[in-house]
Amino acid sequence: MSPLRIAIVGFGKIARDQHVPAIAATEGAVLAAVASPNTSLAGVPQVATLEELLRNGPPFDAVALCTPPQVRRDQAAIALAAGKHVLLEKPPGAMLSEIGPLLTAAVAARRTLFATWHSRVAPAVEPARLLLAGRRITAVRISWKEDVRVWHPGQAWIWQPGGLGVFDPGINALSILTRILPQPLFVTSADLAFPANRDAPIAATLRLADAAGLPIFAEFDFRQTGPQSWDIHLDTDQGPVILSSGGAKLSAGGVQHVVAAAAEYAGLYRRFVELTATGEPDVDLTPFQLVADAFLLGHRRTVEPFEDAT
Amino acid sequence: MSPLRIAIVGFGKIARDQHVPAIAATEGAVLAAVASPNTSLAGVPQVATLEELLRNGPPFDAVALCTPPQVRRDQAAIALAAGKHVLLEKPPGAMLSEIGPLLTAAVAARRTLFATWHSRVAPAVEPARLLLAGRRITAVRISWKEDVRVWHPGQAWIWQPGGLGVFDPGINALSILTRILPQPLFVTSADLAFPANRDAPIAATLRLADAAGLPIFAEFDFRQTGPQSWDIHLDTDQGPVILSSGGAKLSAGGVQHVVAAAAEYAGLYRRFVELTATGEPDVDLTPFQLVADAFLLGHRRTVEPFEDAT
Repeated sequence: MSPLRIAIVGFGKIARDQHVPAIAATEGAVLAAVASPNTSLAGVPQVATLEELLRNGPPFDAVALCTPPQVRRDQAAIALAAGKHVLLEKPPGAMLSEIGPLLTAAVAARRTLFATWHSRVAPAVEPARLLLAGRRITAVRISWKEDVRVWHPGQAWIWQPGGLGVFDPGINALSILTRILPQPLFVTSADLAFPANRDAPIAATLRLADAAGLPIFAEFDFRQTGPQSWDIHLDTDQGPVILSSGGAKLSAGGVQHVVAAAAEYAGLYRRFVELTATGEPDVDLTPFQLVADAFLLGHRRTVEPFEDAT
Repeated sequence: MSPLRIAIVGFGKIARDQHVPAIAATEGAVLAAVASPNTSLAGVPQVATLEELLRNGPPFDAVALCTPPQVRRDQAAIALAAGKHVLLEKPPGAMLSEIGPLLTAAVAARRTLFATWHSRVAPAVEPARLLLAGRRITAVRISWKEDVRVWHPGQAWIWQPGGLGVFDPGINALSILTRILPQPLFVTSADLAFPANRDAPIAATLRLADAAGLPIFAEFDFRQTGPQSWDIHLDTDQGPVILSSGGAKLSAGGVQHVVAAAAEYAGLYRRFVELTATGEPDVDLTPFQLVADAFLLGHRRTVEPFEDAT
């Protein structure tokens, strides 16, 4: 079978750091082009926009949309209409209701729509899921705290409507949580801290539960200097389980489990190549629905204005 | 077949004004009890809570939950666990993610979960849907403006997280819109005005679209004194269509269509009796998802504090 020729649309940090090496490492995938107004990659054809790519670019079969979530729906619709498969970075869009029509269009065109959740393929997530399947979980605490100036420098879109603010990393925690716990979860309360000059929260606390009342507490904070944390602590009937470093490390009963290092994005592209063979979709909106519920239900507080480092 | 014995839980304005006469008018339905801490109805057994109803009340088959949305999930879960059918007033809960587990529990127990949208059974909605099915719609404008002090006096819950504020009536407009337009719709932008002392918006504007770019503009306002409006204007290739008075009136081409008056809630209870015969669920979350998206995507403005009339 000829390889899947992928065009990356939007060539920011995540595209350069993760998507380019992952495509290079994936059998059956090849990087065909980059669409970006102002960034290029040596040896790869570059055009400014998706529209120009379709008009004048090299042939390709699929797009990986690495643009900000607010513009992805239009791009996905254009790509699907042109008969291309579509991989969406997380979150899959700026809001829930735009995904349904895209999925309908993809299924009608027999093209794959793949809403990725890269944290779900972090190396310790599947071992954690298997470990927890044999235990009774009694409480969950999530601490997802990072310095936005380090990890999202100058990303204006993250503060605009649809950019999610601190839920942009927080949704990674929720994507892991909803993978390692099989039962449906829902938000019971949320507190959202909005900088006075921004349209997205800089910090949030959430309480979630399942139908049996499992207490889940999550703290998301973009103002963390010093040690950063991307950790999920689970109390179980057989002792604590800690999934840390964004899903890269697993410890249980004080013992650090050895987890083979694996690149998250390579797992995503293997899956994408598989899906496109039949045009099957893979769209799970569960983490996004929890975020929407936090915004819907959240108590809003205004906190001091946030200014990016200059 | 013996009639469906219904207990109304929560006995506020909507229960007294709408549910009681609708049950009385519905063949195959009978009001068995009222659960309310401080309101009763002559001739009908009354207890304070759902729990007491289950312990000490008369026998019944189903509950109609007319309590504020923030407490309905727990009540629905208790009622389903006790083998009762459940009718939910709109909106079906305080957030999207709590509905999935309830639906799972209902299906497993072969009991009906019915998420009602009373405006969808307003008398002119089905005639409007049929009329529009033969036309091309080019633009939609929704004006849903009412005086909160007149229609929601002293309803503190409406301003609390999960109470939706002006989206409590606004979701009625969205429930009609998503019934009369067959294609999926999504929110493209929203502006939300939060009173400085409240956790829910007092006014909102929304722009929505379909995959083909149909422009839909909605204005919701709780501060409307003087004439109230619950109107949907549709421009079509065969002239304007106006669905007004909350779905009670229809005019097209300047001609007022005669629509037989019909009580919205009687239609809901007829449907509930039908559904419970087989235990089939009826849960459409589309209007609620649009509201969640408006909160997720909305630009937030703080406006002057709101104080209820005293």
